[in-house]
Amino acid sequence: MSKQKPLNVGLVGYGFMGRTHSNAYKRVNDFFEVAHRPVLKAVCGRSDAGAKKFAETWGYESVETDWRKLVERKDIDAIDICTPNNTHAEIALAAAAAGKMILCEKPLSMNLKEGSAMADAVEKAGVRNTVWYNYRRVPAVTLAKSLIDEGKLGRIFHYRANFLQDWTISADLPQGGAGLWRLDAAAAGSGVTGDLLAHCIDTAIWLNGTIGTVCSMTETFVKERKHNLTGKVEPVGIDDACAFMCRFDNGSLGLFESTRYARGHKALYTFEVNGEKASLKWDLHDLHRLQYFDHRDDSALRGWRSIHVTDGEHPYMNRWWVPGLQIGYEHTFVHQVADFLADLAADRPTSPTFREALSTQAVCDAVLDSAEVGTWQTVIPV
Amino acid sequence: MSKQKPLNVGLVGYGFMGRTHSNAYKRVNDFFEVAHRPVLKAVCGRSDAGAKKFAETWGYESVETDWRKLVERKDIDAIDICTPNNTHAEIALAAAAAGKMILCEKPLSMNLKEGSAMADAVEKAGVRNTVWYNYRRVPAVTLAKSLIDEGKLGRIFHYRANFLQDWTISADLPQGGAGLWRLDAAAAGSGVTGDLLAHCIDTAIWLNGTIGTVCSMTETFVKERKHNLTGKVEPVGIDDACAFMCRFDNGSLGLFESTRYARGHKALYTFEVNGEKASLKWDLHDLHRLQYFDHRDDSALRGWRSIHVTDGEHPYMNRWWVPGLQIGYEHTFVHQVADFLADLAADRPTSPTFREALSTQAVCDAVLDSAEVGTWQTVIPV
Amino acid sequence: MSKQKPLNVGLVGYGFMGRTHSNAYKRVNDFFEVAHRPVLKAVCGRSDAGAKKFAETWGYESVETDWRKLVERKDIDAIDICTPNNTHAEIALAAAAAGKMILCEKPLSMNLKEGSAMADAVEKAGVRNTVWYNYRRVPAVTLAKSLIDEGKLGRIFHYRANFLQDWTISADLPQGGAGLWRLDAAAAGSGVTGDLLAHCIDTAIWLNGTIGTVCSMTETFVKERKHNLTGKVEPVGIDDACAFMCRFDNGSLGLFESTRYARGHKALYTFEVNGEKASLKWDLHDLHRLQYFDHRDDSALRGWRSIHVTDGEHPYMNRWWVPGLQIGYEHTFVHQVADFLADLAADRPTSPTFREALSTQAVCDAVLDSAEVGTWQTVIPV
Amino acid sequence: MSKQKPLNVGLVGYGFMGRTHSNAYKRVNDFFEVAHRPVLKAVCGRSDAGAKKFAETWGYESVETDWRKLVERKDIDAIDICTPNNTHAEIALAAAAAGKMILCEKPLSMNLKEGSAMADAVEKAGVRNTVWYNYRRVPAVTLAKSLIDEGKLGRIFHYRANFLQDWTISADLPQGGAGLWRLDAAAAGSGVTGDLLAHCIDTAIWLNGTIGTVCSMTETFVKERKHNLTGKVEPVGIDDACAFMCRFDNGSLGLFESTRYARGHKALYTFEVNGEKASLKWDLHDLHRLQYFDHRDDSALRGWRSIHVTDGEHPYMNRWWVPGLQIGYEHTFVHQVADFLADLAADRPTSPTFREALSTQAVCDAVLDSAEVGTWQTVIPV
Repeated sequence: MSKQKPLNVGLVGYGFMGRTHSNAYKRVNDFFEVAHRPVLKAVCGRSDAGAKKFAETWGYESVETDWRKLVERKDIDAIDICTPNNTHAEIALAAAAAGKMILCEKPLSMNLKEGSAMADAVEKAGVRNTVWYNYRRVPAVTLAKSLIDEGKLGRIFHYRANFLQDWTISADLPQGGAGLWRLDAAAAGSGVTGDLLAHCIDTAIWLNGTIGTVCSMTETFVKERKHNLTGKVEPVGIDDACAFMCRFDNGSLGLFESTRYARGHKALYTFEVNGEKASLKWDLHDLHRLQYFDHRDDSALRGWRSIHVTDGEHPYMNRWWVPGLQIGYEHTFVHQVADFLADLAADRPTSPTFREALSTQAVCDAVLDSAEVGTWQTVIPV
Repeated sequence: MSKQKPLNVGLVGYGFMGRTHSNAYKRVNDFFEVAHRPVLKAVCGRSDAGAKKFAETWGYESVETDWRKLVERKDIDAIDICTPNNTHAEIALAAAAAGKMILCEKPLSMNLKEGSAMADAVEKAGVRNTVWYNYRRVPAVTLAKSLIDEGKLGRIFHYRANFLQDWTISADLPQGGAGLWRLDAAAAGSGVTGDLLAHCIDTAIWLNGTIGTVCSMTETFVKERKHNLTGKVEPVGIDDACAFMCRFDNGSLGLFESTRYARGHKALYTFEVNGEKASLKWDLHDLHRLQYFDHRDDSALRGWRSIHVTDGEHPYMNRWWVPGLQIGYEHTFVHQVADFLADLAADRPTSPTFREALSTQAVCDAVLDSAEVGTWQTVIPV
Repeated sequence: MSKQKPLNVGLVGYGFMGRTHSNAYKRVNDFFEVAHRPVLKAVCGRSDAGAKKFAETWGYESVETDWRKLVERKDIDAIDICTPNNTHAEIALAAAAAGKMILCEKPLSMNLKEGSAMADAVEKAGVRNTVWYNYRRVPAVTLAKSLIDEGKLGRIFHYRANFLQDWTISADLPQGGAGLWRLDAAAAGSGVTGDLLAHCIDTAIWLNGTIGTVCSMTETFVKERKHNLTGKVEPVGIDDACAFMCRFDNGSLGLFESTRYARGHKALYTFEVNGEKASLKWDLHDLHRLQYFDHRDDSALRGWRSIHVTDGEHPYMNRWWVPGLQIGYEHTFVHQVADFLADLAADRPTSPTFREALSTQAVCDAVLDSAEVGTWQTVIPV
Repeated sequence: MSKQKPLNVGLVGYGFMGRTHSNAYKRVNDFFEVAHRPVLKAVCGRSDAGAKKFAETWGYESVETDWRKLVERKDIDAIDICTPNNTHAEIALAAAAAGKMILCEKPLSMNLKEGSAMADAVEKAGVRNTVWYNYRRVPAVTLAKSLIDEGKLGRIFHYRANFLQDWTISADLPQGGAGLWRLDAAAAGSGVTGDLLAHCIDTAIWLNGTIGTVCSMTETFVKERKHNLTGKVEPVGIDDACAFMCRFDNGSLGLFESTRYARGHKALYTFEVNGEKASLKWDLHDLHRLQYFDHRDDSALRGWRSIHVTDGEHPYMNRWWVPGLQIGYEHTFVHQVADFLADLAADRPTSPTFREALSTQAVCDAVLDSAEVGTWQTVIPV
């Protein structure tokens, strides 16, 4: 009875991100008028029982335990990659070769080299592709983007971003395996750099342009943790914390920090942009607000405005409820699917594409290199 | 393929609340493990085209334009009433007579008398019933309830609540008809009292017990508005603003205010409770936070705590994402459906039942009476 | 060596307010260019030892233990009344008769009748007079006044104010005597009404005009306390809490509440004004900020502005430090002295005069009456 | 008539800091019980008219136009240095040689070498000495210090501080001369590093111990400005912005940033410390509050506490008003004088002494060096 064309989705990986994406596919047509309807065709995971349980909960029609089989299935239009970082490239290359659209969870890849191969592959195959940097589609963040693009801030002087968590402070927390692969360098590639700073960097480049040089430091506070896959106490290979300074190509200065040792902060992604005429800031713990300061206001009445981004004229918000009623984290994924489907119908790329996501990858590489060698690094242009 | 038993829902009315309820029915099984699965069997509205469009968007299987037919359908288990207030009673009485479960949007009724008849009817019919006072199921509000019930606050001295909006300030806004029936006294019964204060009162009674006496004032700032149904400028019959003082039966004092003329506030429902040992406050514009002050903290370190209610141990939150990632307004309805289904399986009533909702109705009546006569009124016990 | 003319001050009472006033007299010439310099000529208190210690700390030249002698001294230009409320009238009448200027701590009097006699007396004697409603001279509050007077808010719909404290919750706290006379009805006249709501009412009338009718409730949570003057447990005669609704003569609605049983709030005086075009709010716990919402801002960028009232162009602030550096509570008294001295040189009255302060007195009387009789009361015009 | 012993102060420089110090000297005995009373003996400035006007306003007994003469005066006990940075050393060396106590405005010196000579000189002369790093004596900051020293935070992982201003964004602002010497490299030595980061570094070392290595970047956004002393457009030699990463000797990571190009921030000094068990943060725009998060709180009730640091048991606050009534910026200087006088009576050094302030100087040097050479620098131990 649906009026939309089906878009058959095959999901690889059913962890935290598998849930956020599945929810987005199921909800998008209730709120957005788009020409396609995602169909949850298959979910793939190494554990047959786990995948079946997930399929039952979310309504996936079938289950696979080998992603290669999923990628080859004729009834799948799009592959959604939600697996640990070290598997993104292999799956994406195969999916591209099979002619599937690809929606890949961030970070795109373990490093720039791997990512470049992925971007080349999807372009060569001519398949639609996008990376789930979901925070671009928080309405307050999208609003920030439009303000900057309109020139409201004028010349930008400063950009600063933090992503602060506190969930790995206990030395008793193991590394590796389900739910904890983010602590395992082999699976994650890096620690907070790829997991959290990648978000900050993606937003920063989107809002403020490319980054030319970086200088960083990293630290691993807990040096050894039990490894769930081996059962043994093993050295921790990831960065628990990472901070870096940078210079954007537009002349502004950047300062970034991420850690999982900031007691009191659960997932506090914040950014602030200071321009000649106006400034803005945002944080994930109150994601429905944008702080905005406009120097053009009457001088005695200038102040930071706390904009409750819930009005119909705010980005995406005319699709939801009424002014004053906030949406949450999960909606960013719905927005990304909505945009993906709108772009599909209009035959436009969906930002960030694999190619666009390479910029973040290049910065991450430079950040990790700088931490190792202790000097400023030039970011490889992509 | 679903493992859950179907619960066939017939929705009457497809406005703003029709959307929030439909969304709740569709999402509950993705997040909550319950024995039933709501099936969107039919939606009913006076406009065939409108109802059809709604059905198509949300996936309702069929459409009715006469609620009496819907109520009589054998394939419907539960009637969800989302129509203007002046129709609740008639529909509910018929649904009860037909043996349907009833989920009725708030306020339950136009007044206590009507509501009492509805409560009597559902009890006589022995049908499950509940009223959508959704704010009880904001996790931060549910947490507040548990803190009070545990005795954390000690003796309560003060309760204050506001519900502030600003959307009707323009005198050009008409009254009546789709989207604007809340301004039409014939359809709504009252203005902010039934629409907004009813929420405040329901929460207050839930948290702090029954109210014995009230004294109120109301005002209608814009005296005449064009009426959409008649096309003529007509007197405005609703209260644009209402404030009242009250005494709770536990000896604490209450102060309530609601208005649609508070420039700068979109839907700012706030409440604060002051107890001997602790206090708490909450507001809808940052609904994912609870402010909490505990006098037992070390004296030099006492301060209002801003609790980000997003941890797994917070009410309902183990069903959603991870700490730090906020949910929004719509989730309160999902929680209500989840509780309704859990109660259905356990054969327990779902709060607030029609009977329980009469307390709020009695206070609303007393408030409106007091505004008219200008003296303190005793709330009729229910 | 001072270029200013001396203004010889005689202070009656040396408690909390004696300190704030003394500080103001000593500091004003360091920051404000005025033609007079307050000279701390004498302090008067019933305890000779206490008065002497105070004089030594603050540099008063002499000490009196009988205010009648102070009032008669030829070398005193101005009498500052900082004693408990029940003594204001007698001292003021004598001071007026002696031709002294009078600066009287708020509330002016025990009631309107007494206050009227005081106003008559100072006018008949032709002596300068003012009441220390110091919050008018918080720069953020003065800024609010100017915004309202300029018409920035347009028609006012709502005014609400609270003054919340928590220092008398313990039933072990005695009443009466030094530091605790505010709990003793004989000395204070009333509880929170005269002590705290008087401030709220003064500001409200100043900002929003006169009040026509009120309806209130009061409560005394702790019914008996040991009395320090008698040594016996005695009934508590003051209101621990008071709330009232009112109608301003400009058609706006008012809602006020004060209590000393709001756990977690030390001295939280807050007010909010909602106008057709803009709203503003302020609170004493962050007194250097004014919250301002302007509906004329670009619609997508509207938000409450947090104005840090520390710029040179903000009221009084060009006399202090540099932008961003906040002043505090005590400065409000310095401002009042500065204005008093400027008015003295210009031969203008200093607001609020005794006559102007009667409006607040009339509202307080009506509020206390209403609480007693339980009905709306008309405020006696003054 | 004063019971305290006189302490004769000679002030050099009468700009912004001259005012804050003078105010502190005049107020300290009204609030603190100390054995000495500062006497404003003389103020010295190159402009006779300017110095005279200042003396008249503040009540200095005499005026000098040559600081060498002031230093030699027998009736002066203590020299207070409030002149531009490039004159601190010469004056301090002379004052030490003359056996005067010295209170030197921050930063101590143009660089570590100069500062070391100053520290050597005061120690050799055996004269009391201190540097006005006033933010240590904000009650909320002093409270933070005591919490860290008590071990409330446990192991420290992160320290971050910002000092953000926006007053030099306009390219029309000149450099040099009265009020603008902070923009003149010859007078100031550096820009935000010495002016603002010095504060951040002093607090950081005080709270979190010494810093071992730093890596920084600086920027001068406006390259040329008219120079008030020459009348010509000249290159700007100061750093408009500076950011640096560092490693503390206790193993924690530091991140610091200061700029005068952060639109919307007037004087926003902020710091945050993340420990294993607790975290705290503070900002100068609401200096009377300390934010505190304690992981030992009940897990469902954890949240950042906003501590209103105005209670009698909070540092310094028993000397001021009553709970809830905030003090401001200027009080930090009063506290420093109070401590200086208490230390004088007890014959203890007053922190930070010149010697202690060298740590900050060493970090500033390393920061400026790192910005120039682009590599990590080891901080010279002092």
